[in-house]
Amino acid sequence: NDCGDAGEPSSDSLVSDFEISRILRDCAREKIIFIHGKVKDQDAVVILEKTPIRQDTLSELLKSSQLKLQIKNDVYSTYQLHAPAHLNEIKTTVVCPATEKHVKKYLHQEVFLVEESGEDYRNLTLPYISSQSFSVQWVHNILEKKAEADRIVFEDPDPDTGFVLLPDFKWDQKQVQDLYLIAIVHRRDVKSLRDLTSEHLPLLTNIRSKGEDAIQRQYSVPPSKLRVYLHYQPSYYHLHVHFTSVEYDAPGCRVERAHLLSDVIQNLQADSSYYHNRSLAFPMRADDGLLLKFKEAGKV
Amino acid sequence: NDCGDAGEPSSDSLVSDFEISRILRDCAREKIIFIHGKVKDQDAVVILEKTPIRQDTLSELLKSSQLKLQIKNDVYSTYQLHAPAHLNEIKTTVVCPATEKHVKKYLHQEVFLVEESGEDYRNLTLPYISSQSFSVQWVHNILEKKAEADRIVFEDPDPDTGFVLLPDFKWDQKQVQDLYLIAIVHRRDVKSLRDLTSEHLPLLTNIRSKGEDAIQRQYSVPPSKLRVYLHYQPSYYHLHVHFTSVEYDAPGCRVERAHLLSDVIQNLQADSSYYHNRSLAFPMRADDGLLLKFKEAGKV
Repeated sequence: NDCGDAGEPSSDSLVSDFEISRILRDCAREKIIFIHGKVKDQDAVVILEKTPIRQDTLSELLKSSQLKLQIKNDVYSTYQLHAPAHLNEIKTTVVCPATEKHVKKYLHQEVFLVEESGEDYRNLTLPYISSQSFSVQWVHNILEKKAEADRIVFEDPDPDTGFVLLPDFKWDQKQVQDLYLIAIVHRRDVKSLRDLTSEHLPLLTNIRSKGEDAIQRQYSVPPSKLRVYLHYQPSYYHLHVHFTSVEYDAPGCRVERAHLLSDVIQNLQADSSYYHNRSLAFPMRADDGLLLKFKEAGKV
Repeated sequence: NDCGDAGEPSSDSLVSDFEISRILRDCAREKIIFIHGKVKDQDAVVILEKTPIRQDTLSELLKSSQLKLQIKNDVYSTYQLHAPAHLNEIKTTVVCPATEKHVKKYLHQEVFLVEESGEDYRNLTLPYISSQSFSVQWVHNILEKKAEADRIVFEDPDPDTGFVLLPDFKWDQKQVQDLYLIAIVHRRDVKSLRDLTSEHLPLLTNIRSKGEDAIQRQYSVPPSKLRVYLHYQPSYYHLHVHFTSVEYDAPGCRVERAHLLSDVIQNLQADSSYYHNRSLAFPMRADDGLLLKFKEAGKV
């Protein structure tokens, strides 16, 4: 397995051996690019993302960089700044070997809003999810400390109400402006929002209070600065809760995909079967197999 | 004028002489930072922005960079990439001398998430809104055709369930990618989401169906491509509904401010007093007078 060796020299070559086939998506505003290619005959996706500008190294950055004047007009001047590499990192993510699913995930696609009734969930979505048997092995690795154990910020080991809190992959933890953590529950029997009933209220309130406490302790970010929510559809079917800075325009925090934990808790308190019966709207990409199911059923 | 010389040596020193006073704004997602400071006793603002990743130099970037492995889990690996400076520029803008107006323009206001119970609404928010007597004269002008009559896309004149549909100011109508329309109700007795009961269901379902129809007719955008929602808090207290393209990252469509019309309708169908009694979370800027009321009451 050419991708399997985690040692530094070969990790270098994993990227330097990467042959570009095509650009999957280019987010100029966020300075992210998704590239499809090959590493020694294996499909791979490489994601490059420029990192946020670090406040703690700003003085050093300004003092130690080279500047080239571009435009000068009245009180405004623009420059190209050439920074020392260690002050201007590019976050690189490699998925290798990448499946067709990975490639599709990153490819830019048209988006539709689907309204899924409780019945649609049981007749269309649940059979589809089950048939796909999405792997959550990487989640189990985290819960069992087989991977990323050193990244865990907080853990409540209770099998029913417990969870593991750790930084999301997308967050480099260098600044709290884009704070992003995930709470992953220890229970393995809750796929998503749709499975939640009032039975899960102790779990949800525990995640909220202990998650907020841990973040306040670790990062000095108070609860009033946090957006705490679930995704529907989630990107993996093992219950997890997102904690992001309310000032950060986090991907996936728009109203059509995110559900505030405080709303979820109140809705379940009022009606245990709220998420069983309600129509839930969510966005779907044109290439999503589930969208095809909804189209075949005449629901879109 | 120490900032006036556009020659290269002094342009370098314009930035290297810059003494940082404070960060005005930090946009982690866009990798932009706004800094206030001094250049030899003159006020200055420096804006640093990482540049989009260039497709034309990608191969060179991957081949000529240093990589350091960060995390490895299953098929996923992340690295820090140290790129040659000329392939990883930072766009630098200097405003010097900067006026107070420049500084205010770039200054970020801290944002807090407030949870407002039904009681908080009646005790704090409603008295505050009333005391401010925010003018909605411009809304009445539209409803009475005294202004913007030529911009109306659709109207249902019914005094109870009717509304006027017109493009939002932010939309130039040049392309449907950022489609943004507003439906303003003819009724003048509904300030916001908080006033809605099951009595208003005919109004809400009418807005949804006739609004969607009108947008399909006029712009060929089907209902499955639309995000239809209300804001809480709204920016003006006369009930209105937002229609935006689901692919457009419209301002104000994040979960903490937007409420999907389809959810609002279902919630009122289940419980006429849903929006009377629920705690609703919403974001508030530090300079908002209402936030002060919540702080005084010990709610934030």
